[in-house]
Amino acid sequence: MRVAVVGATGAVGREILKVLEQKDFPLTELRLYASPRSAGTKLPFKGEEIPVEVLPEGRLPVDIVLASAGGSLSKKLAPVWAEGGALVIDNSSAWRYEPEVPLVIPQINAEAARKHKGIIANPNCTTAILAMALWPLHRAFRATHVVVSTYQAASGAGAGGMQELLEGTRAFLEGRKPEARVFPHPLPFNVIPHIDRFMENDYTREEMKVVWETQKIFDAPEMKISTTAVRIPTLRAHAEAATVLFERPVTPEAAREVLEKAPGVQVVDEPEKNRYPMPLTATEKWDVEVGRIRKNLAFENALDFFVVGDQLLRGAALNAVEIAELFL
Amino acid sequence: MRVAVVGATGAVGREILKVLEQKDFPLTELRLYASPRSAGTKLPFKGEEIPVEVLPEGRLPVDIVLASAGGSLSKKLAPVWAEGGALVIDNSSAWRYEPEVPLVIPQINAEAARKHKGIIANPNCTTAILAMALWPLHRAFRATHVVVSTYQAASGAGAGGMQELLEGTRAFLEGRKPEARVFPHPLPFNVIPHIDRFMENDYTREEMKVVWETQKIFDAPEMKISTTAVRIPTLRAHAEAATVLFERPVTPEAAREVLEKAPGVQVVDEPEKNRYPMPLTATEKWDVEVGRIRKNLAFENALDFFVVGDQLLRGAALNAVEIAELFL
Repeated sequence: MRVAVVGATGAVGREILKVLEQKDFPLTELRLYASPRSAGTKLPFKGEEIPVEVLPEGRLPVDIVLASAGGSLSKKLAPVWAEGGALVIDNSSAWRYEPEVPLVIPQINAEAARKHKGIIANPNCTTAILAMALWPLHRAFRATHVVVSTYQAASGAGAGGMQELLEGTRAFLEGRKPEARVFPHPLPFNVIPHIDRFMENDYTREEMKVVWETQKIFDAPEMKISTTAVRIPTLRAHAEAATVLFERPVTPEAAREVLEKAPGVQVVDEPEKNRYPMPLTATEKWDVEVGRIRKNLAFENALDFFVVGDQLLRGAALNAVEIAELFL
Repeated sequence: MRVAVVGATGAVGREILKVLEQKDFPLTELRLYASPRSAGTKLPFKGEEIPVEVLPEGRLPVDIVLASAGGSLSKKLAPVWAEGGALVIDNSSAWRYEPEVPLVIPQINAEAARKHKGIIANPNCTTAILAMALWPLHRAFRATHVVVSTYQAASGAGAGGMQELLEGTRAFLEGRKPEARVFPHPLPFNVIPHIDRFMENDYTREEMKVVWETQKIFDAPEMKISTTAVRIPTLRAHAEAATVLFERPVTPEAAREVLEKAPGVQVVDEPEKNRYPMPLTATEKWDVEVGRIRKNLAFENALDFFVVGDQLLRGAALNAVEIAELFL
């Protein structure tokens, strides 16, 4: 299986290489592509240094394209790669909402991936992390209403976001003013309730992605979902506080039992030992961490939980490679 | 009016001094008290340096005690000060849940303060900031269900918490491991869904405080409230994402109109100009900032909003001094 990574030098691209290596993915050839800016760069893979090529305009000589190079590029080139015979697994939001493009989390709707017409979309990171915990609960107890507040890391905006947070934090500690180019305001020691652009309903696109994508992945257009997406000064791993109302009777104990059996999920829920999900522990972990599972106090038959996942892995690189694995 | 500040050298104590000065509070005498550790310290007030005295065991020779020195000390000494004729305005959680002790936010339930028997309690900072925005909406549209996720600053744990975050961040940037003494885990670039201790229902006391105190301040024991309290790496000003269901018909426009007239509240809600509440702008501001006001997408007749307030001011120092002002 010949594999191309498009956007190989970005935050997600580098993680894709690591996951391919860690999974010992049975590839026969690996091609790395990026913009002309990165030409000449070499990236490590299984002890070798693979040169990064400038992405051509046309077809790619591979079986699978793992693309993470932004929406406008994917919009233009994914159909070209697909016509050339490659299966495109795309990380951008360009194709997620097209009815004929499957939006896939392998642990949830692997069967949807089989219906692809050359392109499969990878979900938004915030959606993917929530979905890992929500799906097993939905299957067991039927979720009807979901309210989520997010705590999203700087690397959700790519390597540049992480860099801006680190540099800005250094500046702040030295008494200088942190700059804001990637984010709309300085992020160090701040909270910014604004990710992606605002829509007409005063929600951000990031907030709407959670609604649209969860409904599509779960094939549950009737599920009521509302989100507040917030950027906070962490480097990696998104956290999310969720309130979920269920149709069938539910208890924290029953939910914990279901989640403990769920693939890709680790229950970290021992408050008495100060164990609960945190970016500190979830970073670079393949499973998402779920904890603080408890009866919601405002609604009947509702649960609250806290989920933290490495958004560069579950929300992007790991999920993309796991989709590719479905076709081995 | 003779005023004592107990716990004068703490994070809240120092803010109380600033607020007294900024408000030109008509005091005839100012006594500052702290533990023996701080003996000899002097604190600036209106151009003078006021010496900090060691807190005695008995009565204090003042009319008003603004106490911010921890629950166990207040439990023991507030009744002594009150018996000595002083009105005690207490910042700890020691007295908040006593039925005969009024729990007061002057903009909301000033009349309750009049019924005091020597002690008036100041609410928890997270409660106070939420209440400023929730109360005017509740009055206008009757809130029935409230779900809140918080983004709480290090200084909520006092000056030591702020210090630990700053030192830990420096350590992290220099490749050293941040220490955790004030917080249960290292806070730099992390998220900790654990503030105060865990209760039997798996909620933290911080989370339950929002429930108990909002119901008491609003005199609304029937209001359904559920909270997730989360510590994040900011220095000052708590942020909160709220979902509120109402009994009477509500729209974002109507809510904005109500909030624009509410005392102590500043509506910051111009997404098209990237203006919304943030710690960066709410720090050291007396008003809480409210924005991201929008129709919740999961529930009928429900709103979402984001509120940010300086928890050392609205949640503590400013609120305490404003209670004292009721008795001028």
